[in-house]
Amino acid sequence: MNVTIRGQTRHYRTVAFDTQQNAVLLIEQRLLPHEFKIVPTRNFRDTALAIKDMIVRGAGAIGATAAYGLAQGARAFKGRDLKKFAEHVATVYQTLKAARPTAVDPVNAMNGVCAIMRTGETVEEQQSLALAAAEEFANEDARHCAEIGEHGAKLIRNGMNVLTHCNAGWLAFVDIGSATAPMYAAQAQGKKFHVFCDETRPRSQGATLTAWELSQQKISHHIIADNAAGHLMQRGEIDLVIVGSDRTLGRTGEVANKIGTYTKAVLAARHKIPFYVAIPLSTIDWNLKSGFDIPIEERHESEVLGAWGVPQDPKSKVQSPKSGKSIYVRVADPASGARNPGFDVTPAELITGIITPAGIFKPRELWSRRKELGFAGK
Amino acid sequence: MNVTIRGQTRHYRTVAFDTQQNAVLLIEQRLLPHEFKIVPTRNFRDTALAIKDMIVRGAGAIGATAAYGLAQGARAFKGRDLKKFAEHVATVYQTLKAARPTAVDPVNAMNGVCAIMRTGETVEEQQSLALAAAEEFANEDARHCAEIGEHGAKLIRNGMNVLTHCNAGWLAFVDIGSATAPMYAAQAQGKKFHVFCDETRPRSQGATLTAWELSQQKISHHIIADNAAGHLMQRGEIDLVIVGSDRTLGRTGEVANKIGTYTKAVLAARHKIPFYVAIPLSTIDWNLKSGFDIPIEERHESEVLGAWGVPQDPKSKVQSPKSGKSIYVRVADPASGARNPGFDVTPAELITGIITPAGIFKPRELWSRRKELGFAGK
Repeated sequence: MNVTIRGQTRHYRTVAFDTQQNAVLLIEQRLLPHEFKIVPTRNFRDTALAIKDMIVRGAGAIGATAAYGLAQGARAFKGRDLKKFAEHVATVYQTLKAARPTAVDPVNAMNGVCAIMRTGETVEEQQSLALAAAEEFANEDARHCAEIGEHGAKLIRNGMNVLTHCNAGWLAFVDIGSATAPMYAAQAQGKKFHVFCDETRPRSQGATLTAWELSQQKISHHIIADNAAGHLMQRGEIDLVIVGSDRTLGRTGEVANKIGTYTKAVLAARHKIPFYVAIPLSTIDWNLKSGFDIPIEERHESEVLGAWGVPQDPKSKVQSPKSGKSIYVRVADPASGARNPGFDVTPAELITGIITPAGIFKPRELWSRRKELGFAGK
Repeated sequence: MNVTIRGQTRHYRTVAFDTQQNAVLLIEQRLLPHEFKIVPTRNFRDTALAIKDMIVRGAGAIGATAAYGLAQGARAFKGRDLKKFAEHVATVYQTLKAARPTAVDPVNAMNGVCAIMRTGETVEEQQSLALAAAEEFANEDARHCAEIGEHGAKLIRNGMNVLTHCNAGWLAFVDIGSATAPMYAAQAQGKKFHVFCDETRPRSQGATLTAWELSQQKISHHIIADNAAGHLMQRGEIDLVIVGSDRTLGRTGEVANKIGTYTKAVLAARHKIPFYVAIPLSTIDWNLKSGFDIPIEERHESEVLGAWGVPQDPKSKVQSPKSGKSIYVRVADPASGARNPGFDVTPAELITGIITPAGIFKPRELWSRRKELGFAGK
């Protein structure tokens, strides 16, 4: 999407590749929203480290990073010995996989790249195929998000107020995003609407990443405390909710997403406000039979007990991104601890529809239409 | 309630009076939870400033502060001329009233003190009556909270998990608090239970004040993000919700309280978890006919866009209150703005009961039992 730095607007992808330098180009997401910086990783070990250290995060984005990292590692190999090349690639693969061991996207992405790469007959040919496959993976991620946008934009009408939670934006994918895709597509169609971003405590991805994206795209928006959505719904100020998902159960239509998503779904149902979940097909889990089987990660309590930000005079009005170093402040009582579940599960009955690249489905329709939705099993 | 400083445990009230020094003694609430300090205000102008600058906050606490401030001002008068004394007291009254012009508690408290004071026949007698009346106001506030505790404690059973929102604790009153009163009373009865404190963004009164109170009282508790309550309810980890109220409509049973209260009530209703509101009778509004008529204050956006805390290593484990200076950090995208409604309104249908000093009532029962509940009108 577009980013404006010192008056210059340019299109960026979250993850890209510099073939000349054999470098993966990443938006340094840990500095956002206070600073925008592209970081090149010049070898596969640095690329793995960038995944591990959360320079890049989000399912689609780390998938593409791993795909590019694999091509980068393969291209760094000198020589013509295919066996040694294969051994080298295996090391690259393991290094990138170990960077985020619980994530499935890097593994799926790298498996795809490897399958295509191995059709080459020489080292050189395999290197070139690896890069082409990685590029295609990234393009496909962006294309799927664009398709989500196309379907989802129909839900946004002029004058609407749209609520979103957390960041399922272009920063979490290669481009465009999932929950944000309908907004970007609606904007491109000339529609005028307003977005409320839940700040999304404890990690504040709504206040930092989603709000930054919307600022860059010049989409009218306000950040709200997570506590405020209920009140705004009660006063008729929210017309539509769109969120993303970390895992959607194909068999039940249940959606696991950032903590607080369930609360917004309950509120939306009470107020008869449509509640949509936007997902690429890769996040559908066709195996699990119940949302209660989804393990809910308990994260470090420091996230709840404090906040990260740039020291500032609270009354100062900064109207353009400026750089500044984020620090951690302890907000809470020093003698208290916290519980910090990272995700929650929203049942199908609270979800109006699931927006996918293949169209919009009722959550309980996923299973019966699993063939269209890429289900590979029986 | 009890506060432990460097191993020494002592009982404190939020507001007290030093007759020797003619000083109002206040807990400096802006330093909590990072530092505990008693501030004496040595004349009525400083007392008014302490209300204005939020050294003291909370309906009951500022009522008592104004009552003591009036007595303090009256006692500072030198001479025997009753007319000059009355003029002086009028200045004191206006100064204290102007410190928080929208609040009703200081005015009600001072009117009560004045009525009793004027029964004295000499300046000296009036001065002494003013102090006695202020003391009685403070004692009555604490007594009412103790009565709330007595009724509410019956709701807390051994092993329960209780959720509370914001701070309706002893820091908001002279002692004991409203929403916390049942917890303190249940603890005194030897019951074992656990409390979840919503952090209560944007101002974090749950993470700072309520959690600090519970730490001091050695009540088992965890702070949670406001987003987490829905998930915990879904997993059966919350058995009871108790909150306070800024204004309760006697005619409809609707409750205005800190933003986010409504959301918790909606979630509790979905999960069939009892949802109680604890209030002193002074917060019942017998006039308004609809919750939609309650003006909802929009507060400064900086509250949502950032946070106040003490710079710290996020991984450090501090187990006892230590002093530290709070600073403001900007969390959110620098180019984004925020909406910041401070309160919301919970309808009667979502409220299981209203815990008052006079007993526990159904919200829609308030009006029919208004005589018991101190309604002075027709």
